[in-house]
Amino acid sequence: MQFSLPDTLDILERTPHALHGMLAGLSHRWTDPNEGPETFSAFDNVGHLVHGERADWIPRARIILAQGPEQRFAPYDRFAQVHESAGKTLAQLLDEFSMLRVANLAELRSWDLSASQLALTGEHPAFGRVTLQQLLATWAVHDLGHTAQIARVLAKQYRVEVGPWRAYLPILDRP
Amino acid sequence: MQFSLPDTLDILERTPHALHGMLAGLSHRWTDPNEGPETFSAFDNVGHLVHGERADWIPRARIILAQGPEQRFAPYDRFAQVHESAGKTLAQLLDEFSMLRVANLAELRSWDLSASQLALTGEHPAFGRVTLQQLLATWAVHDLGHTAQIARVLAKQYRVEVGPWRAYLPILDRP
Repeated sequence: MQFSLPDTLDILERTPHALHGMLAGLSHRWTDPNEGPETFSAFDNVGHLVHGERADWIPRARIILAQGPEQRFAPYDRFAQVHESAGKTLAQLLDEFSMLRVANLAELRSWDLSASQLALTGEHPAFGRVTLQQLLATWAVHDLGHTAQIARVLAKQYRVEVGPWRAYLPILDRP
Repeated sequence: MQFSLPDTLDILERTPHALHGMLAGLSHRWTDPNEGPETFSAFDNVGHLVHGERADWIPRARIILAQGPEQRFAPYDRFAQVHESAGKTLAQLLDEFSMLRVANLAELRSWDLSASQLALTGEHPAFGRVTLQQLLATWAVHDLGHTAQIARVLAKQYRVEVGPWRAYLPILDRP
């Protein structure tokens, strides 16, 4: 499938609804546990997505579009949500994610990007030159990756309870 | 996390909302492709979940609760949706899944299951005796597995478009 901006927006605008459907009102018993050391709970995943809305996707897109002297992105902090989410409820994070996403997609749409703008580049701190189009495709895939990760961390809480069915449920033994 | 019926219902009743949020109105470009031979598209996944509502979870629970002479479950047809979904739209399948799930959870709640009923067993065609509690835990985990699988098959459509970010997105290279 080739990149298109409308197709990318179709994924990006649905993620808050998908996460709300999966998580809103769910108890801490499901949403607090993680998959082991240095991994994310469902709560952590949503906090990570909130952080990305503020610090990552749109700020990086702005750097590319500006084509200024400094095109290198700030490194991304994968554990920023540990302090940023402190004291918040999952309901608050879900609302915050929805509101930030709506605002970010409004800004993205307002740019009315041309093919030549989508081909502009910035510099990723780890692997060098990347295009705006690759950044936007990655934003959508990153959403889907965390949607899958949330489903997985929830599923793992019942790893023992499924008994012999575990052999048929690969999600329970995926890192 | 230990099994509880209310916690299990909390997952089961959310899955239609999660899938609706992720998929409703999404174009065929996202929802028709699969991950390769013998794998499911997003459309196939929803059809598979519809089939499970009709043929698998509640029928198997009824067999266990009846404790009749035949406690062996019918083998599950993993590809039933190929013919059952033929001619339907994804919107139809999402609605069908929601309606069947609501009815099935109403039936499950009406049983008002006791701990001793949850410990009753049936016979799985592949691995023998399983409890009603394990069946219900598996139903919830199966939902989450297909939620993750749908996110993954969507993400893979942009496997090339993310460029060098692929190295940071393990969902793109998971079987």
